[in-house]
Amino acid sequence: MNVRKLEAVKMALAEDVGLGDVTTQATVAPDRFGTGRLWVKESGVLAGLDAALLVFQEVDPDLVFEANAADGEALEAGTTIASVRGRLGSILTAERTALNFLQRLSGIATRTRSFVELLRGTGVAVIDTRKTTPGLRAFEKDAVRAGGGQNHRWGLDSGVLIKDNHIFAAGGVGAALRAARAYAPHALKLEIECKRLEQVREALDEGADIIMLDNMRGERLQSALEMIGTRAQVEVSGGIREETIQDVALPGVDWISVGALTHSVRSLDIALDLEERKDGK
Amino acid sequence: MNVRKLEAVKMALAEDVGLGDVTTQATVAPDRFGTGRLWVKESGVLAGLDAALLVFQEVDPDLVFEANAADGEALEAGTTIASVRGRLGSILTAERTALNFLQRLSGIATRTRSFVELLRGTGVAVIDTRKTTPGLRAFEKDAVRAGGGQNHRWGLDSGVLIKDNHIFAAGGVGAALRAARAYAPHALKLEIECKRLEQVREALDEGADIIMLDNMRGERLQSALEMIGTRAQVEVSGGIREETIQDVALPGVDWISVGALTHSVRSLDIALDLEERKDGK
Amino acid sequence: MNVRKLEAVKMALAEDVGLGDVTTQATVAPDRFGTGRLWVKESGVLAGLDAALLVFQEVDPDLVFEANAADGEALEAGTTIASVRGRLGSILTAERTALNFLQRLSGIATRTRSFVELLRGTGVAVIDTRKTTPGLRAFEKDAVRAGGGQNHRWGLDSGVLIKDNHIFAAGGVGAALRAARAYAPHALKLEIECKRLEQVREALDEGADIIMLDNMRGERLQSALEMIGTRAQVEVSGGIREETIQDVALPGVDWISVGALTHSVRSLDIALDLEERKDGK
Amino acid sequence: MNVRKLEAVKMALAEDVGLGDVTTQATVAPDRFGTGRLWVKESGVLAGLDAALLVFQEVDPDLVFEANAADGEALEAGTTIASVRGRLGSILTAERTALNFLQRLSGIATRTRSFVELLRGTGVAVIDTRKTTPGLRAFEKDAVRAGGGQNHRWGLDSGVLIKDNHIFAAGGVGAALRAARAYAPHALKLEIECKRLEQVREALDEGADIIMLDNMRGERLQSALEMIGTRAQVEVSGGIREETIQDVALPGVDWISVGALTHSVRSLDIALDLEERKDGK
Amino acid sequence: MNVRKLEAVKMALAEDVGLGDVTTQATVAPDRFGTGRLWVKESGVLAGLDAALLVFQEVDPDLVFEANAADGEALEAGTTIASVRGRLGSILTAERTALNFLQRLSGIATRTRSFVELLRGTGVAVIDTRKTTPGLRAFEKDAVRAGGGQNHRWGLDSGVLIKDNHIFAAGGVGAALRAARAYAPHALKLEIECKRLEQVREALDEGADIIMLDNMRGERLQSALEMIGTRAQVEVSGGIREETIQDVALPGVDWISVGALTHSVRSLDIALDLEERKDGK
Amino acid sequence: MNVRKLEAVKMALAEDVGLGDVTTQATVAPDRFGTGRLWVKESGVLAGLDAALLVFQEVDPDLVFEANAADGEALEAGTTIASVRGRLGSILTAERTALNFLQRLSGIATRTRSFVELLRGTGVAVIDTRKTTPGLRAFEKDAVRAGGGQNHRWGLDSGVLIKDNHIFAAGGVGAALRAARAYAPHALKLEIECKRLEQVREALDEGADIIMLDNMRGERLQSALEMIGTRAQVEVSGGIREETIQDVALPGVDWISVGALTHSVRSLDIALDLEERKDGK
Repeated sequence: MNVRKLEAVKMALAEDVGLGDVTTQATVAPDRFGTGRLWVKESGVLAGLDAALLVFQEVDPDLVFEANAADGEALEAGTTIASVRGRLGSILTAERTALNFLQRLSGIATRTRSFVELLRGTGVAVIDTRKTTPGLRAFEKDAVRAGGGQNHRWGLDSGVLIKDNHIFAAGGVGAALRAARAYAPHALKLEIECKRLEQVREALDEGADIIMLDNMRGERLQSALEMIGTRAQVEVSGGIREETIQDVALPGVDWISVGALTHSVRSLDIALDLEERKDGK
Repeated sequence: MNVRKLEAVKMALAEDVGLGDVTTQATVAPDRFGTGRLWVKESGVLAGLDAALLVFQEVDPDLVFEANAADGEALEAGTTIASVRGRLGSILTAERTALNFLQRLSGIATRTRSFVELLRGTGVAVIDTRKTTPGLRAFEKDAVRAGGGQNHRWGLDSGVLIKDNHIFAAGGVGAALRAARAYAPHALKLEIECKRLEQVREALDEGADIIMLDNMRGERLQSALEMIGTRAQVEVSGGIREETIQDVALPGVDWISVGALTHSVRSLDIALDLEERKDGK
Repeated sequence: MNVRKLEAVKMALAEDVGLGDVTTQATVAPDRFGTGRLWVKESGVLAGLDAALLVFQEVDPDLVFEANAADGEALEAGTTIASVRGRLGSILTAERTALNFLQRLSGIATRTRSFVELLRGTGVAVIDTRKTTPGLRAFEKDAVRAGGGQNHRWGLDSGVLIKDNHIFAAGGVGAALRAARAYAPHALKLEIECKRLEQVREALDEGADIIMLDNMRGERLQSALEMIGTRAQVEVSGGIREETIQDVALPGVDWISVGALTHSVRSLDIALDLEERKDGK
Repeated sequence: MNVRKLEAVKMALAEDVGLGDVTTQATVAPDRFGTGRLWVKESGVLAGLDAALLVFQEVDPDLVFEANAADGEALEAGTTIASVRGRLGSILTAERTALNFLQRLSGIATRTRSFVELLRGTGVAVIDTRKTTPGLRAFEKDAVRAGGGQNHRWGLDSGVLIKDNHIFAAGGVGAALRAARAYAPHALKLEIECKRLEQVREALDEGADIIMLDNMRGERLQSALEMIGTRAQVEVSGGIREETIQDVALPGVDWISVGALTHSVRSLDIALDLEERKDGK
Repeated sequence: MNVRKLEAVKMALAEDVGLGDVTTQATVAPDRFGTGRLWVKESGVLAGLDAALLVFQEVDPDLVFEANAADGEALEAGTTIASVRGRLGSILTAERTALNFLQRLSGIATRTRSFVELLRGTGVAVIDTRKTTPGLRAFEKDAVRAGGGQNHRWGLDSGVLIKDNHIFAAGGVGAALRAARAYAPHALKLEIECKRLEQVREALDEGADIIMLDNMRGERLQSALEMIGTRAQVEVSGGIREETIQDVALPGVDWISVGALTHSVRSLDIALDLEERKDGK
Repeated sequence: MNVRKLEAVKMALAEDVGLGDVTTQATVAPDRFGTGRLWVKESGVLAGLDAALLVFQEVDPDLVFEANAADGEALEAGTTIASVRGRLGSILTAERTALNFLQRLSGIATRTRSFVELLRGTGVAVIDTRKTTPGLRAFEKDAVRAGGGQNHRWGLDSGVLIKDNHIFAAGGVGAALRAARAYAPHALKLEIECKRLEQVREALDEGADIIMLDNMRGERLQSALEMIGTRAQVEVSGGIREETIQDVALPGVDWISVGALTHSVRSLDIALDLEERKDGK
């Protein structure tokens, strides 16, 4: 199991359960067993099943979790996502944390899907950013892919993205690209953020693999794309929303990155219903 | 320093920085120094300064962080929040993680403030729920208070809230309340969720301290409030939004809990601008 | 499983086993199996079975632990508590740590029971304090309940207890209570420590939920109780011992807190006897 | 700083403070400063100053801690141990945890000292056991030395002590000693627990460095000591109390181990008094 | 500070110091101060200064560490690397762990330099692999760069390298490359290991960015390089040693990866000499 | 399971896998199963099986690992060490980390065996030092024993070794030995490093248990051994290599310590071959 994900789940339970679940320990006898049904109260795209599984397992390894749907599925309101059965008290203690993961991650997948739909047929991909929730990076990158998007670099150690401050510190676009080529593992492409056309030209001359056109729109964006042609791949970024994404999905654009996929998300409404098991198992 | 907060910051940096910030290490010489200015690009309520401070300190203890505003302040677009000065490379490596905290937490404070404004003059308080981001509970509870809201219990170990599943497992409202009174530390009030009027009656008879009226509206809510009178405190909950909160802010209601304060938040737009320091310090 | 408990067990094993159990690794072949019987060498009240179970599981997940008694049971000398069977070496490596938990926690339960017996029929409950062993809070709170006591707040985040230094810093009893009411999650009662009668009066006027009468005895205690009547609940505290507890268990007192339940405890004598299994399993 | 000690302090604060100190955050403004004086309310031997220092530093690195006494000093009631000055709120949040360490550790030092006094002039040393509080081993071993005792092995990885179960598993005293000699790092002496005289004889023949005479008293103990002479060092163990220790402090005995030094301890009564600083620093 | 590096240092100290440094605590009074001089006993390339600094700081934050050389410098035998001054006992406790890091990392840098020298003038770079010491990845990648080498991907999350088992599981070279392009963050190049010429052809047709020619020598290697031309970058790998590296440093080769840089290293001999400070500071 | 070992494995996986194994996740479907065969590509002595097992279990608890050889066995090239079967993707993600442990540890065992062979018949044992890889102490001590060597102390807390700096700080050989005897747990022998004959004499007079003769050769070594006779045990140390070890394996020497056993090791070449399982299990 991925260490980062496991740590995130443990931290979430540590903060919620703390020294114990007073209410459940008081009111639910340890010999009560039952089944919880997780279901979506509104339509949306599912993500985060592995998070929910981990939460239940951490609280009680004897809980049995069975998925009835898969990450990435578009579900109608009312659909059962999964069931979890075992000790009633364990299910109740884990419930809120499991839902907090599922709801947020499904919210991300759902919003990603809506952006992806807007680009259908353009050949341009929607990608995320590093504007993820602190601590949940691994889960949220998965949720974006579940929604049909692709991932930008997973972290600072797994991609080169030269921004204006790096250009400034290195002494120019060319110097920055040369420094990065000399330093970075060869597995990484060199991507550079350009705000002006002359930066684009310099980046092309220095052999940048990817040019990120930041906050360019209309004619300026068009000029940049023409200048680049097939000499580099192109990412468009900067405050993209549902209303504006189609305007920048021009020929020559490979990816459009959207921070809002992860930084401003409405949780999908998901619930857990419990029923006690007759057979006491 | 609060252990929970420190762990959340460390985990956020671990996932983002991993084995190193390739781009910055390649392009920014270690003898470059500068100052970063954090400022809000749109108006909103500030929260999360302590998170930003922790991020910068964890990345480089020699960075000097100075706040120019305080959590809870309503800021105009363009206002400087804080400055951080020291090694340029350190500031760049920390930037995204610091902003991810600040933006989300200020988003929570801003949304909370809008709910609080809607209840101005009613004497009813807005409170949060446990629908917080996994791992960020301590920060998000602070952000709600920064926005003028109050906190529901911080975790399962610091409050009794008997819900329908607990009632079911305990064998009824009365049994559940008696079990909780026998078990729970005396510092905790006994709160119980009621969906029907006869539950309210039973809870009052058993001496519940707080009655949570879940998803009650209109006449049913009115009847419940009349039945309760001053015999218990009252929390109203269940899918409350900006459009509906005033409808349930009736006399006799003490608190209205709103999950959306933390589960569905638009980040506040905050930026960090860098300038190099001439004196090399 | 509760995270706090698991961490305490892991730390205990880390410090005792370190890089390995030299003696056992040298003298016990890995293919030796057996059964250990845990039994009390003197009469007392059992507590800490979950700690022992966790210790054995952490050392070797293949060990099978079976309880023959339950926390809270008053056991005669010689009674078997539990058995653990599996690899002989694992049982020996875990033995001391498991016993260290069990003995201390059963010591707490046993002493608590003796206080509880002294109050039988008075309607006054014995409660613990935060004077617990650093790192063992969750286990020790359980042990007190196993002994028949109740718990004071579990930690600083799960109860309001305004002491003299808080009153001083806030500027008086009234100011402190108002500040706490404005800040604290509504799930928490407001408890305040009073050393003088005028503090009691002020606390009542400000609506304190619980008044802790600290180090009051005799007439002064009687006067305070009369002043309070049914307007607040009452905790009596301050150097209570077996010899003095009945003197303060007066009508009107709800709880008597006793630090010695956890800060000065004689361990219950518990032993583990081993027998090798014939069938090699 | 010792990692084990630091982890114990962090865990203690994590369990006590959790998500925050509600009462102090509510009632003590962050700009209040003061000084806390730690003093003993009864006479005893001090231990654990480093634990207290670590607690205050972890809560707030800006607190300034100054010791007025040293571990191992026998203090009269009323003596000031140390002062801590800085933010009032930080001192209050740390107070209970710091005291919990200090009181327990000083209790151990005090009880150890009383055993040491009973052996004055005999040339026999009092030593501890592994019956320490789970998680506090490093602190408690120091406390025993502060009281004038010596330490038995610090953990399973730093000493060989062959007990009856090891003898049984290895196939006899001789086999066990040979196995240990072949396996154990050469820095470790070979100690073996003997309950019968023929075991003593076998251990001597096999060249054991230390023989632990377990639960031997009177003539049997005398015979064992005579048999051993100067061929090995001698530890006496088994339920030793203040009343019985002098009976077994015979010529030829090097050490007497006393589990009660750490497993059954009355905390020393220590208090923290606060005064606010006029100069606000 | 990089979290991975800090954790590696903490773990190294935890395992070496454990519950305390018996010898130093026994023999070195806490009021003794001095200076330690770190120097190389044989010529070599320095690496790991940051590890040594971290070790000393973790043991005692009051130690002052001053570097007299920089990572990547080729030092003559006898050269001083750094000095550390402060409490004598702290220096002694940290010494071995600091040296263990420095010696191994400088050994890596030194061996890397020797490979780099063999390729001088060829335009081919020496790169490392993931055959690093478990737990020391971040440090060892730095040491390779200090020696003049470059880094292969830092971890499984920061590079795509399709090996034979992936090709097999995906159903062929083309299928594997297409799957990787669809899944991997766009910041990552697509590298694929080819053992046969037809795999090279298929990889080129599918647009692989980098082709790793595994265990190819002589004519077969030559044919592969001709087939590739400028259509992809080329890494040569497979059991390369000093004796054979020049044979494969052919035109068209970009990188040669050498596992032995990190998996089979002779430590550089480095010592710490102590002198006590007269002024007691 | 040993905590130190488990932490080392977790850290190794954390640094290698990070946020995920991009290549495997992209190319290997989760429903593919298979078996990996671990085998030695050259002859050598096996060590580290428990490390490999832990790596596979941490990555995926459902993997089934079966050993076909045991630590300490001398294996011919081509011998199968173990097999692991289960999810193909899990095996691939774990492969490199498992091999990194196995190869290094088997390299240590193999080199140790060669030293041991050189001393066959002399009665002198080869022992390791604390010059182990940071973080891998517990594994490497096992590997030395697997190779037929013995262990020096496992850490600073489990042995007394007085070196020149301790002698200097304590004020001489006698003072240092007396201080250590007074402080150290009685389970530890007193070992002291002597560089000159008069130090040896002083150490003998003070009753040192073990004398380490550091960097003594030829006549000087002979004189020291004569002086010591049977009054203490003897360890010889200092830059010992295969070429020189027999010169110092003189009568009277008990142990020869060799830092190179762990600080300069060539990894044993070990590979993992995969085959998919037909039955999909």
